[in-house]
Amino acid sequence: MKKNNNSNLKIIPLGGLEQIGMNITAFEYEDSIVVVDCGLSFPEDDMLGIDLVIPDVTYLKDNISKVKGFVITHGHEDHIGALPYILKDINVPIYATKLTIGLIENKLKEHNLLRNTKRKVIKHGQSINLGSFRIEFIKTNHSIQDASALAIYSPAGIVVHTGDFKVDYTPVFGDAIDLQRFAEIGKKGVLALMCDSTNAERKGFTMSERTVGRTFDNIFAEHKNTRIIIATFASNVDRVQQIINSAYKYGRKVAVEGRSMVNVIGTAAELGYLKIPDKTLIDIDQIKNYPDDKVVLITTGSQGESMAALSRMAASIHKKVTIKPNDTIIFSSNPIPGNEKAVSRVINELSRKGADVIFQDAHVSGHACQEEIKLIYSLVKPRYAIPVHGEYRHLKAQAGIAYELGIPKENIFILSSGDVLEMNENEEEHARVTGQVRTGAILVDGLGVGDVGNIVLRDRQHLAEDGIMIVVLTLEKHSNHLLAGPDIVSRGFVYVRESEDLMEEARIVVEDAIDTCLEKHITDWGKMKNVIKDSLGEFLWKRTKRNPMILPIIMEA
Amino acid sequence: MKKNNNSNLKIIPLGGLEQIGMNITAFEYEDSIVVVDCGLSFPEDDMLGIDLVIPDVTYLKDNISKVKGFVITHGHEDHIGALPYILKDINVPIYATKLTIGLIENKLKEHNLLRNTKRKVIKHGQSINLGSFRIEFIKTNHSIQDASALAIYSPAGIVVHTGDFKVDYTPVFGDAIDLQRFAEIGKKGVLALMCDSTNAERKGFTMSERTVGRTFDNIFAEHKNTRIIIATFASNVDRVQQIINSAYKYGRKVAVEGRSMVNVIGTAAELGYLKIPDKTLIDIDQIKNYPDDKVVLITTGSQGESMAALSRMAASIHKKVTIKPNDTIIFSSNPIPGNEKAVSRVINELSRKGADVIFQDAHVSGHACQEEIKLIYSLVKPRYAIPVHGEYRHLKAQAGIAYELGIPKENIFILSSGDVLEMNENEEEHARVTGQVRTGAILVDGLGVGDVGNIVLRDRQHLAEDGIMIVVLTLEKHSNHLLAGPDIVSRGFVYVRESEDLMEEARIVVEDAIDTCLEKHITDWGKMKNVIKDSLGEFLWKRTKRNPMILPIIMEA
Repeated sequence: MKKNNNSNLKIIPLGGLEQIGMNITAFEYEDSIVVVDCGLSFPEDDMLGIDLVIPDVTYLKDNISKVKGFVITHGHEDHIGALPYILKDINVPIYATKLTIGLIENKLKEHNLLRNTKRKVIKHGQSINLGSFRIEFIKTNHSIQDASALAIYSPAGIVVHTGDFKVDYTPVFGDAIDLQRFAEIGKKGVLALMCDSTNAERKGFTMSERTVGRTFDNIFAEHKNTRIIIATFASNVDRVQQIINSAYKYGRKVAVEGRSMVNVIGTAAELGYLKIPDKTLIDIDQIKNYPDDKVVLITTGSQGESMAALSRMAASIHKKVTIKPNDTIIFSSNPIPGNEKAVSRVINELSRKGADVIFQDAHVSGHACQEEIKLIYSLVKPRYAIPVHGEYRHLKAQAGIAYELGIPKENIFILSSGDVLEMNENEEEHARVTGQVRTGAILVDGLGVGDVGNIVLRDRQHLAEDGIMIVVLTLEKHSNHLLAGPDIVSRGFVYVRESEDLMEEARIVVEDAIDTCLEKHITDWGKMKNVIKDSLGEFLWKRTKRNPMILPIIMEA
Repeated sequence: MKKNNNSNLKIIPLGGLEQIGMNITAFEYEDSIVVVDCGLSFPEDDMLGIDLVIPDVTYLKDNISKVKGFVITHGHEDHIGALPYILKDINVPIYATKLTIGLIENKLKEHNLLRNTKRKVIKHGQSINLGSFRIEFIKTNHSIQDASALAIYSPAGIVVHTGDFKVDYTPVFGDAIDLQRFAEIGKKGVLALMCDSTNAERKGFTMSERTVGRTFDNIFAEHKNTRIIIATFASNVDRVQQIINSAYKYGRKVAVEGRSMVNVIGTAAELGYLKIPDKTLIDIDQIKNYPDDKVVLITTGSQGESMAALSRMAASIHKKVTIKPNDTIIFSSNPIPGNEKAVSRVINELSRKGADVIFQDAHVSGHACQEEIKLIYSLVKPRYAIPVHGEYRHLKAQAGIAYELGIPKENIFILSSGDVLEMNENEEEHARVTGQVRTGAILVDGLGVGDVGNIVLRDRQHLAEDGIMIVVLTLEKHSNHLLAGPDIVSRGFVYVRESEDLMEEARIVVEDAIDTCLEKHITDWGKMKNVIKDSLGEFLWKRTKRNPMILPIIMEA
């Protein structure tokens, strides 16, 4: 390394590696920082009660004067979702393509941030200068329109970041991925490639989005006499377009249900990304005015989310749509890992109501499989490979691909969040991780950002598993005589009415414990609480093999 | 129907339809009841803190004098796991094949029930008479050895119950499924077929268990220089046999880790279902005495269960095994629906430690796919089809297959737990559901069987999501003066040290509420508690958009 660190490019992932979804990466050169993406994560199973998770951007706050802007690759939650939270501290301009900006603006409106946030629409092929950086937007394909790869030009060299992408030679809307441009930049010499790893374990090529349209046509042709309900991802506008196309072809009206679906379709139609023939769209309230074989309902809930429209229909608690026997219901989606059981539950409920549920061949992935990843590497021919987007196993699978393609092992970096990877074009100086900055996951629960941490989560886990037993007593000041109690109240432990004996015995155990304390003149409340906890805990474990949280509360009167 | 109901055969599923796993079915004819299987379920995600779920067998208790015995198809938990609980009330003999009885005996020992339980080993091809029934055991293949289908002969006709099965023409141990016997019984005329639906959505044929052995051989040949660790299902003795075979062929010793794995292998070896060459098996403590390339470790944890051996190795908390870079770790399993994320987490952790994780081609299913199901229907040619084993979607998929094979729709029954399906051989009387008996899921939590119900679960859910706020106060008897408190204690709500202001404001809200009550001379504690709950709840929602459980406790001194 040169002694002057400033002449290196620093790549610092601030999230998205340990916690999938929270994609955010800082690119730093001397006094310029550009931030690529700003996504949120959905909570892991053990984050009880948490609504969403955002990245800790202390590093950006500490270097706020350097930060030139957010550059966003596409409009999915895991790339834009944290913006409203992070912008409060890091108020810099946002650069993205038209639909992406449109979706970001929806979020900013909700958070009342539209007025105070600068944003600029960039076209594919266009570049912007941000401090020492020039950023070029390159057309790609993905499960949302207007996705971009980025060529990040710095004095230390060029980095190509694919964003989430696939290669679709026959996209539904707009152009195919700009492979020529990838090749052209590759010819110039690329220092590092940061490539989407999500499907790096999957062989072959991801099918074109257009194949799903053909499946829809077939299903519509085979189910001419029934109502058709299709669940898919709200943000997959091309998918919605193809449903509308099939509906129009087969003379059906289209209604849309689910808040996020209505929002995205509204934005996409307004910005010209969705072409809806006149009089095709009807309001959900109007579907009752049409025969079943003349309507298609597009809905949210393809992941079995319990509050989404389709799940509510399946559970017979949807206000406007009742599932009928012979409804044809299509899951135009695959379950995201972790959602398999919830999706299956909804399929079972719908089947039980007599609906015909179709979940095969009605979805393609938005991510590149192995052959596409190889193609991008072969066009870009980077010196360094930095797999991004995916779980560790996926990053490792891409590292394997890069190695197969001739990139030496020491030139492949599987980074952790917070790693500072420094590099430049000098062949004699090898890229290396030179440090670590603070990163982390900040939990959002209701209005609280960061006020729920590990202790609170551990308590929630404990409460969830065995419930709580509260022991209250009132002692007389000074004398320490027992004035009231001990009363025992439990929640989430046992059904009390059927366990009266157990609760009465527990009360006696506590009384004995208190007597012991008072006899021994233990007056320190902390010690007293511990004695109560220990004796009651031991009793309950012996009797029930359960371990509820025991919470003694001592009051003084 | 004839007027005399007694001359009908009644088939009554007592579990296993709404709650997957809890397989138990009563067959009743006049004064005889035979019970097929007696399984447990593992808790659903919303059954917080529950260890396992067993069926409500009130119907059997109410008809105890009729119950002749349990006939068990094979030794998996979802077919034998509830026996120790149910036998306490329904103490009748158990009939099963040798390995199945061996595994049941392990359970009975644990529950101290071995002495008081009659059990009888039945061979394939053998029959037993139980009241009006004769039950014949027919050899099948499955992911555990000694699995049986049952031909249930009653005066009202023959029912064939496949149990869980696949068709394996080249099994690792013992014979292939006895297809000839299925055909022979089919020729006699079968009233109803109850056939495994688990894989009814999957096309084609399930591969032979032997194919996994070839995969192992290939992996062993390709990884001659590293330690090999293989995770699989404890009960899959054939899988373990094939690992031992490959280990022996490649000159490796075999160690076994994980309680259930050690148990099953012990029982299987003792009963002659597992052939272990001399000096091949070593104790887990001995592996340190061998070079890495001379050992194979077989372990539990293939489902990512957090307490299982492999998960503990991945998390670096296993006492005896430390994962090394270059360890070759094979998942010889597929994730059971719902476990995908947990499995992925373990794969990520192992990969992060540098291990080479293999999870492709190292597993085959133990259940019949569509072509096998068609084969069994075509051999048995039943009048009625009753799909069993699987989620509703799977039962429905099999119903579709039965229909394709020419069974009229009205002869296909997708039953619910508790349905009483009556039938006999008289062609003019059609089978029909004539009633419902009580069934249900009984939750087991620690030593408690049935003492955790919906209210407790709802409380646990509430506590898990938002925690609890406890408000305690002591009032003076008669006068109702406030003697102590109000004190507020929270758990699982917010990290209190960082939210002192909020907690202080909450206390003031509660004080105001109490003052209001006392001023208005509200002395009814129930009303007072409601006022506290409402005002505090409203305040917290407004400030945090969270909804903790609020628990006011009033004491009297």
